Amino acid sequence: MAEPIKFYFDFNSTFSYIAIQRIDELAAKHGRNVDWRAISLGHLFQAQNITPPPSLPAKFKYLSVDFPRSCAMVGLPCKMPASFPPDVRLARYVFWHLKAKDEGLSHRFSKLVSAAIFGRGEDMATAAQLAQACGSLGLTEAAIDAAGSDSAAKKAVVNALDGAVADGMIGAPFFVVDGEAFWGADRLDQLDWRLSGKR
Amino acid sequence: MAEPIKFYFDFNSTFSYIAIQRIDELAAKHGRNVDWRAISLGHLFQAQNITPPPSLPAKFKYLSVDFPRSCAMVGLPCKMPASFPPDVRLARYVFWHLKAKDEGLSHRFSKLVSAAIFGRGEDMATAAQLAQACGSLGLTEAAIDAAGSDSAAKKAVVNALDGAVADGMIGAPFFVVDGEAFWGADRLDQLDWRLSGKR
Repeated sequence: MAEPIKFYFDFNSTFSYIAIQRIDELAAKHGRNVDWRAISLGHLFQAQNITPPPSLPAKFKYLSVDFPRSCAMVGLPCKMPASFPPDVRLARYVFWHLKAKDEGLSHRFSKLVSAAIFGRGEDMATAAQLAQACGSLGLTEAAIDAAGSDSAAKKAVVNALDGAVADGMIGAPFFVVDGEAFWGADRLDQLDWRLSGKR
Repeated sequence: MAEPIKFYFDFNSTFSYIAIQRIDELAAKHGRNVDWRAISLGHLFQAQNITPPPSLPAKFKYLSVDFPRSCAMVGLPCKMPASFPPDVRLARYVFWHLKAKDEGLSHRFSKLVSAAIFGRGEDMATAAQLAQACGSLGLTEAAIDAAGSDSAAKKAVVNALDGAVADGMIGAPFFVVDGEAFWGADRLDQLDWRLSGKR
């Protein structure tokens, strides 16, 4: 079987939301698995010497038009959280904690969390908020709190950043397919095209 | 008739090449005209306090993968010019000189020039080079030289930049359709979708 597609994202990234909701289905169409990797986008920008796009007023203004439109075009609900960028540190740790046990569970967790943040504009900073959004997965507030203290999960967030820089990540979402990089939810069509064997 | 679509671009911009070759056909499908505006992307970045993406090594490396792939996906030839960014100052002046006389001629000129630069990787800095690429339009080297000294054309390049900043331009190509902004050749599909009356 072919290598899994590497998928780098952050829970605080608008366009990662679109990719989180769509990448598994797209990959499955081509018989491919996806290796999800939550990273800290702020640290990635620092490492790559990139000014975070939303920090520039003109770019944030455009984002506020482009992101809802991009969601509408693929049929996803969209609501920007009141505080942007949202605090997603705990969500990242929980992601890696779950991934160590069950890759599929980490995907389901991510879909629920990002739908809460960018589909409904909810704050997902605390264990109580995450537990409420992820009740269908059987994750309790206590389990989420415990996952947030998992030192292996914290180490994994740092390691994932190193991998992202090595893979040339310059923004989120970012994909690596058989060594080839794709950046942006707007590259899912090209990824689909490439997986169909087109050149 | 509806207002023309505003189309801001620069001859030295990779993804402007794709938009230049495609925008008129897309707009015509929806019965719309396009008001083309060549600007100096370097000055736009300065005005908006944006670091030119290709000046960051990691972004340039990604561009060298993404741009040829984006061209291939829409069936356009692609070859990066040896010196990047290419010198396109004369081409901008000639564009505005022609546009003052004949909007359609300015489009045909732009298509030929950008196809030479990014489709064949040719240098288009001089009147002789532009005349060779645009022979089919009946533009002589002398006429191009004269256009390069047209003070109204030079003024138009400056004015176009002011309009671009006022319209919120943050990169090229950039479109404004009935007051709504679209950035990037990868937004042509959304522009098409919007012109179809979708929300």
